[in-house]
Amino acid sequence: MKLRRSERMVVISNYLINHPYQLTSLNVFAEKYETAKSSISEDISIIKKAFEEAHIGEIETVTGASGGVIFTPTISKEEAYQVASDLRDRLSESDRILPGGYIYLSDLLSTPHILNQVGRIIASHFKEKKIDAVMTVATKGVPLANAVANVLNVPFVIVRRDLKITEGSTVSVNYASGSSDRIEKMFLSKRSLKPNSNVLIVDDFLKGGGTITGMVSLLSEFDSHLVGVAVFAENQQEEKDLVDYKSLLSVAELDTKNKFIRVELGNLFEL
Amino acid sequence: MKLRRSERMVVISNYLINHPYQLTSLNVFAEKYETAKSSISEDISIIKKAFEEAHIGEIETVTGASGGVIFTPTISKEEAYQVASDLRDRLSESDRILPGGYIYLSDLLSTPHILNQVGRIIASHFKEKKIDAVMTVATKGVPLANAVANVLNVPFVIVRRDLKITEGSTVSVNYASGSSDRIEKMFLSKRSLKPNSNVLIVDDFLKGGGTITGMVSLLSEFDSHLVGVAVFAENQQEEKDLVDYKSLLSVAELDTKNKFIRVELGNLFEL
Repeated sequence: MKLRRSERMVVISNYLINHPYQLTSLNVFAEKYETAKSSISEDISIIKKAFEEAHIGEIETVTGASGGVIFTPTISKEEAYQVASDLRDRLSESDRILPGGYIYLSDLLSTPHILNQVGRIIASHFKEKKIDAVMTVATKGVPLANAVANVLNVPFVIVRRDLKITEGSTVSVNYASGSSDRIEKMFLSKRSLKPNSNVLIVDDFLKGGGTITGMVSLLSEFDSHLVGVAVFAENQQEEKDLVDYKSLLSVAELDTKNKFIRVELGNLFEL
Repeated sequence: MKLRRSERMVVISNYLINHPYQLTSLNVFAEKYETAKSSISEDISIIKKAFEEAHIGEIETVTGASGGVIFTPTISKEEAYQVASDLRDRLSESDRILPGGYIYLSDLLSTPHILNQVGRIIASHFKEKKIDAVMTVATKGVPLANAVANVLNVPFVIVRRDLKITEGSTVSVNYASGSSDRIEKMFLSKRSLKPNSNVLIVDDFLKGGGTITGMVSLLSEFDSHLVGVAVFAENQQEEKDLVDYKSLLSVAELDTKNKFIRVELGNLFEL
């Protein structure tokens, strides 16, 4: 397919956006668009500049015979702050408070453009780390893990609280369920995670941290390593037995009786 | 931000790709990139041509004061066929067969680039219909619904088989669980679906159709309308009590004892 430069800009940038964190040889584009590699190289320079100016992401050029370009999605600090501030305001709506100190989040975590933005913020924060998979627990964490995995271009792994026959053999660990002070079980399908994987754990809401501690102990059962923990929102008032985590939003006050909630930006925005 | 044409190509096409099915006024781009609306209009023509040639999608121009452009993602028949054929081969691996006639799908439905491609195929099939939300049932259907909703740029709605306190008030219906011939309950949070919504139902695997029939009856509880049903794979051998559905893949033979599975392309590819 022979295209003009301006058209090549469109199709090559579309390709890179759909293949983040993946090395693509310039020969692929040169052959596909029947153009000299030097022209493709100039195209990439223009795309790189545009991506940087518009804070779409970074393009890294790897030289040598097996070289090519790698696109890493980013988000500007201003945009990340704006997205989080908007979400803070949405989360502060008093009709989200449910009996028992829970907060209704499902509408936010089922809207594609919100998920995409949050995915970009979390993925950007960990962009210097090598990540092979994103792990979460069913059901609420799945869309967020999906969104982060989408930006990082890696698979996501779903831990279950119940045992489903469609998962095949599973490994289970016990964990302390924060909401009930009980010991429960969580399960992960044996073939869903390769040994020696570097894993980012993602969840929707962090209370005591029992679920996440459970997932961390699952990681060692799979001879895999924790890269980090990221949550959409945390409850500041609860004591957590977690070493380190990053939150997008933080619930500072939650008064179920008087239907009052105060939300701040999470520790992901701390300097 | 003042950019050259070739750079504008990159940032405008990126914007359109991230805002599918959404009307955007050309003034938005003209102001943002400090350029005459006539130049933006020419930019759009070039992007439209490139999108069509590379089968990225269609750009429709709406004229008039409240006009603008709408991007609709598509996929070429050849690419859709190639994606489905590759997935058919993956699904035909005999070690996917689990006891009880189940098939292990989790690895395919947790890989972002597969989900994105399948999402584009399903969304393209229904692109002429007005869709307000995508509905699925927890947990397995969630990533696929997320992917389709992402392409259609609408929220997705998760029906649950258990009752979670974090969902607030729910509506429940009974359904016949195909796998166990039992009557079970499914629940949908009251605030998760607006009345009068046009809904596409998506699920991972179709056996008897009981779960989907349950979701259809939930739709009437929410005064909403069924647009269509799409599944990743169906079991051809099972009789279904469903009026109409589209499948990407179809399991023609499944012999658990001899570990044999034969998969064909689904009825989405029938003429």
